[in-house]
Amino acid sequence: MNNFKLKTESKLVKRKLSDMSTMYLDQKAVKEVLTEDPLIYEFSTIKVPEENGHLLHCISKIYSGKIGSEYFMTKGHFHEVENTAEIYFTLKGNGKLVMQANNGDSKVINMKKGSISYIPPYWAHRTVNTGNEPLIFFCVYRGDAGHNYGIIEKNGMKKLIHEKNNKVVITDNPKY
Amino acid sequence: MNNFKLKTESKLVKRKLSDMSTMYLDQKAVKEVLTEDPLIYEFSTIKVPEENGHLLHCISKIYSGKIGSEYFMTKGHFHEVENTAEIYFTLKGNGKLVMQANNGDSKVINMKKGSISYIPPYWAHRTVNTGNEPLIFFCVYRGDAGHNYGIIEKNGMKKLIHEKNNKVVITDNPKY
Repeated sequence: MNNFKLKTESKLVKRKLSDMSTMYLDQKAVKEVLTEDPLIYEFSTIKVPEENGHLLHCISKIYSGKIGSEYFMTKGHFHEVENTAEIYFTLKGNGKLVMQANNGDSKVINMKKGSISYIPPYWAHRTVNTGNEPLIFFCVYRGDAGHNYGIIEKNGMKKLIHEKNNKVVITDNPKY
Repeated sequence: MNNFKLKTESKLVKRKLSDMSTMYLDQKAVKEVLTEDPLIYEFSTIKVPEENGHLLHCISKIYSGKIGSEYFMTKGHFHEVENTAEIYFTLKGNGKLVMQANNGDSKVINMKKGSISYIPPYWAHRTVNTGNEPLIFFCVYRGDAGHNYGIIEKNGMKKLIHEKNNKVVITDNPKY
């Protein structure tokens, strides 16, 4: 029980547009921007055993930018172990946390420096950078939570975050 | 499953010297300072269901000061559900995280702005403010983890954090 190494190691994951090209609504814009294939976001996960008693944690950084009018965002996922929460502490920038339940309920909350964002068990979640600088946040979730990207990859999320007339707007996803 | 209220409420807990007077080594100094009974630390816990799938989280603030030569610190505790981790992200200040396993193993690590401190399952933990400003950190632990203060209240911790010749020193607790 006491033989867990306190020293941890980290792993950096980078997601470019080509890793999530189908997730943006404006596919014409996607094709144009794909020639550059920009880095959309990256996260550094600190490795701990993927067990219920442990807490996986990461620093996520979403770059500033848009594909068409839609802001740079993460892929979004449910947890494999659905009954597990996640929590963010925002370190820098401005954004939105888009959440969605299996029954279609949806919720969008603001993220800004110093804000604590709680994702209850069972809710899918995606983060969106609506500002002009990187959105950086600390995240924590149960060691065995896992990621289920498939449902969001297939169906998208109900709400999309766009820029319209220099303002951030929440729109219904016509493809959902 | 989707009826958890996303709106959360918080609870502020304050610990004065009188709440933990036996925990400092220098009992003569304790008696002197007890006339003022300073606020040693406080934490604001955000309420979520105290269940395995949820994540309790708080902002902790340890004030700057000493009782004799020993720095202001938290009471220290194991979790009631011992096989549960805890994690800190330091927002401000400088300090030490003192950890201890049931078999007597001990570990002290530094905390400073931006540092991530991981407390593996089974380890007791206490935080100590070694700086001249409040030590403030964000903390996360499993909803059902609970707190067991009794073992540390009775036996203390193996390592104490003192100031000696204007330096921070780690000493063995002679009462342990």
